[in-house]
Amino acid sequence: MDFDHAPRTQAIAAQVEDIFQNDILPRNREYMVAAERDHDLTPALLTDLKKKAFGLGLWNMALPQLGDDDPGTRLSNLEFAAVAEILGRVGWASEVFNCHAPDTPNMEILQMFGTEAQKAEWLAPMLVGGIRSSFAMTEPDVASSDANNIATRIERRGDSYVINGRKWFATGAGNPNCRFLIVVGVTNPDAPRGRQQSMVIVPTDTPGLTIVRNLSVLHHVDHRTPHTELLFEDVEVPVSNRLGEEGGGFLIGQARLGPARVHHCMRAIGRCEVLIRLMVERASRRSTFGKAIREYSSVQAAISESRVALEQARLLVQRTAWRLDNEGNKAARKDVSLIKVAVARAYHDICNHGIQIFGAMGVTEDAPFAEALATARAFRIYDGPDEVHLQTIFRLEEKQGEGQDLLSAYTGRY
Amino acid sequence: MDFDHAPRTQAIAAQVEDIFQNDILPRNREYMVAAERDHDLTPALLTDLKKKAFGLGLWNMALPQLGDDDPGTRLSNLEFAAVAEILGRVGWASEVFNCHAPDTPNMEILQMFGTEAQKAEWLAPMLVGGIRSSFAMTEPDVASSDANNIATRIERRGDSYVINGRKWFATGAGNPNCRFLIVVGVTNPDAPRGRQQSMVIVPTDTPGLTIVRNLSVLHHVDHRTPHTELLFEDVEVPVSNRLGEEGGGFLIGQARLGPARVHHCMRAIGRCEVLIRLMVERASRRSTFGKAIREYSSVQAAISESRVALEQARLLVQRTAWRLDNEGNKAARKDVSLIKVAVARAYHDICNHGIQIFGAMGVTEDAPFAEALATARAFRIYDGPDEVHLQTIFRLEEKQGEGQDLLSAYTGRY
Amino acid sequence: MDFDHAPRTQAIAAQVEDIFQNDILPRNREYMVAAERDHDLTPALLTDLKKKAFGLGLWNMALPQLGDDDPGTRLSNLEFAAVAEILGRVGWASEVFNCHAPDTPNMEILQMFGTEAQKAEWLAPMLVGGIRSSFAMTEPDVASSDANNIATRIERRGDSYVINGRKWFATGAGNPNCRFLIVVGVTNPDAPRGRQQSMVIVPTDTPGLTIVRNLSVLHHVDHRTPHTELLFEDVEVPVSNRLGEEGGGFLIGQARLGPARVHHCMRAIGRCEVLIRLMVERASRRSTFGKAIREYSSVQAAISESRVALEQARLLVQRTAWRLDNEGNKAARKDVSLIKVAVARAYHDICNHGIQIFGAMGVTEDAPFAEALATARAFRIYDGPDEVHLQTIFRLEEKQGEGQDLLSAYTGRY
Amino acid sequence: MDFDHAPRTQAIAAQVEDIFQNDILPRNREYMVAAERDHDLTPALLTDLKKKAFGLGLWNMALPQLGDDDPGTRLSNLEFAAVAEILGRVGWASEVFNCHAPDTPNMEILQMFGTEAQKAEWLAPMLVGGIRSSFAMTEPDVASSDANNIATRIERRGDSYVINGRKWFATGAGNPNCRFLIVVGVTNPDAPRGRQQSMVIVPTDTPGLTIVRNLSVLHHVDHRTPHTELLFEDVEVPVSNRLGEEGGGFLIGQARLGPARVHHCMRAIGRCEVLIRLMVERASRRSTFGKAIREYSSVQAAISESRVALEQARLLVQRTAWRLDNEGNKAARKDVSLIKVAVARAYHDICNHGIQIFGAMGVTEDAPFAEALATARAFRIYDGPDEVHLQTIFRLEEKQGEGQDLLSAYTGRY
Repeated sequence: MDFDHAPRTQAIAAQVEDIFQNDILPRNREYMVAAERDHDLTPALLTDLKKKAFGLGLWNMALPQLGDDDPGTRLSNLEFAAVAEILGRVGWASEVFNCHAPDTPNMEILQMFGTEAQKAEWLAPMLVGGIRSSFAMTEPDVASSDANNIATRIERRGDSYVINGRKWFATGAGNPNCRFLIVVGVTNPDAPRGRQQSMVIVPTDTPGLTIVRNLSVLHHVDHRTPHTELLFEDVEVPVSNRLGEEGGGFLIGQARLGPARVHHCMRAIGRCEVLIRLMVERASRRSTFGKAIREYSSVQAAISESRVALEQARLLVQRTAWRLDNEGNKAARKDVSLIKVAVARAYHDICNHGIQIFGAMGVTEDAPFAEALATARAFRIYDGPDEVHLQTIFRLEEKQGEGQDLLSAYTGRY
Repeated sequence: MDFDHAPRTQAIAAQVEDIFQNDILPRNREYMVAAERDHDLTPALLTDLKKKAFGLGLWNMALPQLGDDDPGTRLSNLEFAAVAEILGRVGWASEVFNCHAPDTPNMEILQMFGTEAQKAEWLAPMLVGGIRSSFAMTEPDVASSDANNIATRIERRGDSYVINGRKWFATGAGNPNCRFLIVVGVTNPDAPRGRQQSMVIVPTDTPGLTIVRNLSVLHHVDHRTPHTELLFEDVEVPVSNRLGEEGGGFLIGQARLGPARVHHCMRAIGRCEVLIRLMVERASRRSTFGKAIREYSSVQAAISESRVALEQARLLVQRTAWRLDNEGNKAARKDVSLIKVAVARAYHDICNHGIQIFGAMGVTEDAPFAEALATARAFRIYDGPDEVHLQTIFRLEEKQGEGQDLLSAYTGRY
Repeated sequence: MDFDHAPRTQAIAAQVEDIFQNDILPRNREYMVAAERDHDLTPALLTDLKKKAFGLGLWNMALPQLGDDDPGTRLSNLEFAAVAEILGRVGWASEVFNCHAPDTPNMEILQMFGTEAQKAEWLAPMLVGGIRSSFAMTEPDVASSDANNIATRIERRGDSYVINGRKWFATGAGNPNCRFLIVVGVTNPDAPRGRQQSMVIVPTDTPGLTIVRNLSVLHHVDHRTPHTELLFEDVEVPVSNRLGEEGGGFLIGQARLGPARVHHCMRAIGRCEVLIRLMVERASRRSTFGKAIREYSSVQAAISESRVALEQARLLVQRTAWRLDNEGNKAARKDVSLIKVAVARAYHDICNHGIQIFGAMGVTEDAPFAEALATARAFRIYDGPDEVHLQTIFRLEEKQGEGQDLLSAYTGRY
Repeated sequence: MDFDHAPRTQAIAAQVEDIFQNDILPRNREYMVAAERDHDLTPALLTDLKKKAFGLGLWNMALPQLGDDDPGTRLSNLEFAAVAEILGRVGWASEVFNCHAPDTPNMEILQMFGTEAQKAEWLAPMLVGGIRSSFAMTEPDVASSDANNIATRIERRGDSYVINGRKWFATGAGNPNCRFLIVVGVTNPDAPRGRQQSMVIVPTDTPGLTIVRNLSVLHHVDHRTPHTELLFEDVEVPVSNRLGEEGGGFLIGQARLGPARVHHCMRAIGRCEVLIRLMVERASRRSTFGKAIREYSSVQAAISESRVALEQARLLVQRTAWRLDNEGNKAARKDVSLIKVAVARAYHDICNHGIQIFGAMGVTEDAPFAEALATARAFRIYDGPDEVHLQTIFRLEEKQGEGQDLLSAYTGRY
């Protein structure tokens, strides 16, 4: 048991940290003005930094199955954890290193399930950061936390699939650089559960596909990676656009979710670290009723509780990454659900502590807590709400204890 | 002890309920489209309803000191509690009855401290719903929960006051119909604490006054009653615009805060009632993993916990109103702090329960939880953050127990 | 709406308060030494005070159906709330006024369902405080929160009932002065749900009845009103000992539970009031790291949070009592469940705040928090665990909202 | 980074697990009857198992500074973590392997600060499990969480120290096999803070030392390792009984606390693991309202939340042990405070979940939750209450962030 990252990991993380400290953090405000205020999503600043990261090979680090010939550096999940935490500190840093959602999990399923033609057309340009993609699963009309509820139809007509339905929270679909979507829908409603759905690749410019709107999340619209509502009206794509086999959609979805959730958690840890540091700084700068805010024990407790939550969550995320690497996705299922619940909650609680310490500024856009709260709050729902993960944990807990009889050893009168 | 409202109160509340059910709720969507989407803050719908309410005398009900000759109906705080709860169910209902913040507390301090000239110029048009006002106290550069921190200078120069400083969260100042602000600032920095500040009336069109921006609150901008940032650069008003005496600002502020907080709490109770009802309805409409959401005991518990919190908070608000009426502001100080903490928390918790039950829709603008959460979250800071009220409660708790010695009766070995 | 108790209530409460301050509180330690340390459950001190209270008519105040000829003063539930809060401040005060559980709810069902003979034999001596009783429903072998699970058999054999089964948490059965139990069991397993059970009166000295042990609750044994485990082996009583009709047990149980729960809540409010006062006193007496504990904002917050919880809970209890008086048991069902959840939680939280403020002393028997915590913790289970009451609240919430459609008014895109 | 224990650790843990499964768990009831019911603290069962463990060298594993010639196996803190978790599953298992508190930390400070004579007389017999010891620091009359408050006087008189004062929570002093206490007191009230106190060894049979009583903790008395109240009246010991140098008491106390806290945390993790397993089993055995308790989503959530808390706490404990081994006590200070807060809370919460799932049985002595709750609740106070650790964490957090300026990068308007 060793809680230090391996030397190679430390070296790579140090390079990323270097770029973060010298090129990203000092230019955060510049980027925010360009992207958030002026809606220029690809300012020169970003393009230049992407080139730099690409040149250093600090690229595609979120893809444990990156090919030897692909650009970038292949990292294990655990190795990426060290990097992702740094990237998570500002919202746009992941894109600098081509490690941003939803492209990374989309690249991953293309690697795993894509045909050579699909890889050439869609994966290759993503691996060099040329285009963006989206993933369309959630639907407004059903409780999508149960994937079996999904109602969008993907009907076979000759050599085509024809798609009809409504999706929302298709992450990133509204980004102007988004070139295609991976869409989940029902190809065979009569198949057994888990075999009814398939995934197809839909180019963004396919007729019949309407980008309805970019949704706000707690009134925040992320222009870079918006949560988009989409309408599919007789959208037709060739059968060769199917990802994996017909009826394999549920399975691919499961494969996609694990790493996607874990990466979100890793980044959240880094963001929370920043929020704690900001709280400490703010507490030392203000005073009320004749004493510095930092002297109030309840303020101290709010910050310390944030640390208690974060340190624990970080370790659980790291162990989950380690387990994914060493024991595989199935063995790590409970861990993935555990971090989903724990990190979302820690993130949410830390935001709330921060808002309270920042006072009125905390709820405005002048401080990062409002956006962080929007992200954290939604994170308790995205990728499965807390409730579903708690149910999953329980089922695995039951399985683990099967056949035991501790009640007779520990209970009863003596 | 009697938990029924008096017959007169019930009769008035029934009239308001009638308008709410027939004229407001069915047209809520219509109003939202006009005001929130198209930014038409005075659609005919609103103007017509105001006329109707005015005609029925269902007007100015939030002013316990309403004059006999003033338009509307004078209600006690407790009576208004019954009405305010109905109004709180939709955001714009209060304005229909001229019972909306921040105009009601501003009218109240004009009633209490205004000169006849001030009343004629500023109070009279507000009493008929003709103009709007704002209140500028909080500043971005200091922790304003301690009013002694306020730094804006109001300097006497001959027959004028000259104001310099920066304010934010000046509620409603960005509404196009806002005609004047009541501004808090330091007239005498050398006076003893509590005597340094004064309040002056500043017409919105006074030179030197800049409306910098309307702030978002958790990314939500309330266009009707925005939280506005203001810059005062050598803003000059006649000395006759001073409200009350010089050095009396702190005192007037205290007088203003009591009812303002209580009214916010009353309206929040009504809003929470709606949120609970929506949760119940939603839980019955959706299903996951083969059963209706309403059958999950954790969903049931979320709704029931909301009810546990709300029923208790409602009663405490009602008793506070009763105490304000019967024992006065000073006797009700602890109660006001208690409801500030309890209602903001119940509101916040109920929003969070609702978001979880509504799933992805809960964080969008398609459901009322996102806006409610923004309001509720900020409410934990506005009008004194939780921490300050908990401190106030403690001090009053200590006072109440002075001289007791229960430790000797209840502790020790036997 | 009026939050003052009626003058008559205030006058009676003042008399009780007088005895409490002069005769009970100053002698609390004396009583504890006698009863808790020396296990003398009827010290002269208690007997004398009972005589005094009886003489003043401050007696049987927990029985809203007290007969005109019965000793004592008939109070409504709301009136009793004012008295019970005083009594709750020390554990043995209720007995001084013959208002103690489980005798009061037992007297109440004897009043309601007892035959004249039963009343003469069992109710009459209780009304003068001569004997004690117990109530045996909960069973160790089934989840008794669902009364339908109860398995004890009460079989008719000629003119007798023969009882077999095991009960526990039969409150007060282990008190040496307990003369009879009211036992719930199945008389007809084939009857429809809710009609299978009956109640019978079982004298404590009936052959076949074994008092197995007095249970500890979080290791605390209440010698006055112990939670007793009982074994029934062919215990035979005449059919005339049946309370109410055969199959009526479930119904009588429901009738009994309402007031029993409410009285527990009322007393808990009084006890919590004491705990808060003790915290305030303790916080002013100790210091750490160079400042008084009372100066730490987190200590202040712990006390203030206790007050926030208690004031709300108290009001909800009072309204529940008022509703029981004015609208009846059925209308008050939701309120009874609400206070059960709210009071148990407030009580529990206040104990935990107190323990933390008292430090090591807080967990010992030298301070009242350990016993209070035992009571409060168990209170979250007795009379229906939180979970069951939350389920009840939800069902009633659903009923209340039936037929509404607020979703269409409040949700959707605009 | 590696989350598996090293092979050697796994091998040792497997041996301990073997004894636990074959010799301890199956005989738990037997031991409890002997020790808890019949107060036989050294039943043959225990003596035999100690011999076995001693023979296998599974002995003294909690002493990272165990000498090469000492009996047993020297483990690092991290290695012991693997063992301690197993031992924590039942209360008496630690003693089987001579790894029980308070003897292990007492042995440790004797190793570090004891003279050869002291080691020969007191340490040697403890290392073979022959005698027991106690540690007397906390005092009833002062807030002992601030060690500077300690008031017991240790006065030098010629070649003796004379001790006067009152101590409580002297863990294990009431065990009949306890032969000596290590007592903390003031030798020089005029010395600078941190240099006023010394520690002396006081044999249990020294005249003037009175064992006043064994304290209950939430009414539970641990007869094996009771929390004892002690009175020192002119208790005289030779100067050679001083541990370390005069004025060095505070420093030794600090040295002692680190590992003591960590070991408690390690054992608590093992105990919590058992409690979760018991909840899972119980939930599958009972049913209410027509369905198994395990099917209620709120029951599932209670168990899953327990797992979320426990997995995180376990990792933090392991990392703390690793840090103590690799970076030393000072570097691990924040971690020690973090686990103190996190583990005590997780333990407490898990107990409360368990009680609720076990229903009435949960509060009795028939299930392990009542004792666990007593331990967990007190653990939030022992070794520094939550509040003090949160303060420590904050101070270290501030230190860590010194000189940073993230506010300028992350806040402000754009």
